[in-house]
Amino acid sequence: MGKIRVAVNGYGTIGKRVAEAIMLQPDMELVGIAKTRPDYSVLLASRNGIPVYVPEERIRLFAEAGIKVSGTIEDMVKEADVVVDATPAGVGALYKPLYEHVGVKAIFQGGEKPDIVEASFNSYCNYEECIDKNYVRVVSCNTTGLLRLLCTLNSIGRIRKVRATIVRRAADPKEDKKGPINSIKPNPVTIPSHHGLDVKTVLKNIDIITTAVIVPTTLMHLHIVNVLFENPVRRDDVIDVLSRRKRIALINAELTGINSTAKIVEAARDLGRKRYDVPELVVWEDSIHVSGNEVILMQAVHQESIVVPENIDALRAVTGLVSRPEESIRITDQTLRIGVFQESFLSPNRNTLG
Amino acid sequence: MGKIRVAVNGYGTIGKRVAEAIMLQPDMELVGIAKTRPDYSVLLASRNGIPVYVPEERIRLFAEAGIKVSGTIEDMVKEADVVVDATPAGVGALYKPLYEHVGVKAIFQGGEKPDIVEASFNSYCNYEECIDKNYVRVVSCNTTGLLRLLCTLNSIGRIRKVRATIVRRAADPKEDKKGPINSIKPNPVTIPSHHGLDVKTVLKNIDIITTAVIVPTTLMHLHIVNVLFENPVRRDDVIDVLSRRKRIALINAELTGINSTAKIVEAARDLGRKRYDVPELVVWEDSIHVSGNEVILMQAVHQESIVVPENIDALRAVTGLVSRPEESIRITDQTLRIGVFQESFLSPNRNTLG
Repeated sequence: MGKIRVAVNGYGTIGKRVAEAIMLQPDMELVGIAKTRPDYSVLLASRNGIPVYVPEERIRLFAEAGIKVSGTIEDMVKEADVVVDATPAGVGALYKPLYEHVGVKAIFQGGEKPDIVEASFNSYCNYEECIDKNYVRVVSCNTTGLLRLLCTLNSIGRIRKVRATIVRRAADPKEDKKGPINSIKPNPVTIPSHHGLDVKTVLKNIDIITTAVIVPTTLMHLHIVNVLFENPVRRDDVIDVLSRRKRIALINAELTGINSTAKIVEAARDLGRKRYDVPELVVWEDSIHVSGNEVILMQAVHQESIVVPENIDALRAVTGLVSRPEESIRITDQTLRIGVFQESFLSPNRNTLG
Repeated sequence: MGKIRVAVNGYGTIGKRVAEAIMLQPDMELVGIAKTRPDYSVLLASRNGIPVYVPEERIRLFAEAGIKVSGTIEDMVKEADVVVDATPAGVGALYKPLYEHVGVKAIFQGGEKPDIVEASFNSYCNYEECIDKNYVRVVSCNTTGLLRLLCTLNSIGRIRKVRATIVRRAADPKEDKKGPINSIKPNPVTIPSHHGLDVKTVLKNIDIITTAVIVPTTLMHLHIVNVLFENPVRRDDVIDVLSRRKRIALINAELTGINSTAKIVEAARDLGRKRYDVPELVVWEDSIHVSGNEVILMQAVHQESIVVPENIDALRAVTGLVSRPEESIRITDQTLRIGVFQESFLSPNRNTLG
């Protein structure tokens, strides 16, 4: 099978990252990106040689902004084997008839309702379920973080119950109109929040309840997760399974000084990572509290980048390009240099990790 | 028995509020307040006629700042039946030898270690245990919030387990040197946090684990509390017992629009409350999730004022002035107008409350 041809519809926070990730894959080719309004990000994409597709009635507007247009969004979709739909939440559903009409597969994001797709996706949980599907959805950042954790911890024992609190960043760094500035806001006030329900779109029978509050930060979400197993587990085993996952960065706050979301971001900046992205789920090793069959820990989720590797794997799954999840994950992790975060901050005398 | 004579050592966030509350009590008299450095708050106190006591070597400094000094801290302590020690965390322990030497009782704050006192105190939990004790400690704001909830919920069933996450305000409104500005900081990274351990200084045998993170706000703390009962409970009963407590304000976010810590504070400002204080524990009625024997809810704690009524009750307990907790609580609530917050925002057709 040749390279799969992928179009990215929507060029915001997720779209631009997924487009760049696609260009790094040996088995994929980027057809182009679609955008409805010109801005600095699409100008930069255009100057970097990425084909830009726009709605027909906007071609002139883009031309005035100095952006070369390669065709309409429909033109782009027709060139592709799969579309990654990274349009704003709810807009993907409006594009689905176009994808169906053209007969192209599509990967949607977590902002879409689960009922517009055949399956929701997480690489560690249900890659195989999504093979050869036409429409799948990569769950949102918080759900991806929870699923990575749970589909790793479930290798050491049967999970009976999960209770998690999500302390959400209020806005992404670029969103300078959003708040709150000085408030803690239950979001929603009602319990449960949607995150646990979203986890169930992948892990159908899990007993999970999540609660969420919004706080005035922009960098990352933070989760406090309580996992109750059927039987007692050992802390060493928890650390062992987490440390074997490249997409989970187990960080020791005491040894590294990385003891807040701001410090995680500073570490990513020091690593020279583009846009200081941290696609790894960061789990604080120090926080792992194990008592009998109960595990409590804290983890941080970089909302802008955590779903990027999942989008890449989902492309291989729906096209049937790679049938073994480990194989797709290996290629994705290698090309996106995932795992470097943990390796860089690993104490040299800790050979349990990695 | 005549009025009890109370001295307040330390005139910061807690000290100034407790001193004002003492002046409102029919059975107490404020001997004076002690302060080690002149500032705007003590200047105001002095101008309002409150006797100010200072360390001997600072008398001149206070005089230069235009503050009339009534004597030394030792002079003040000798005039009192009880001292409320509201000095900074850890400093109370340094003053304890003075209180012992003079032979005066003392109420310490939650910043002191529990081992310097005979008992830790919460009005709803263990008033009677503290009667006639010489040294007791009013637990800190978060612990007070947790104890008020737990010593109310325990009237509907036996509590098996409590798990709570505390989303902490980073600094008080006046603390303009503290952070974080844009970060979520596990504090501590290790689990459990001290709050659950502090709850156990009052409820000795409870199975409680707390976790805590700090976020960039100044107004209130927010708790997500998960209480597991031995047997199933009914949501109506949870609402009923919470609504009967004047020190717990059960607020419906949907009906009132009070859906964040900022809105709670705005409501307190609209009520004309001095310093926008909210000594009531605010529980969001909408958040109360009951399933079988599990209750999950969200509550907010005003860190500056929640312990004020407890300090007043503790004074009556240690002096033996009032032996029945309900009687002290009734006087304190009436004089401090506690309960007004909930009554003001109660839907007129909700007669379950109050």
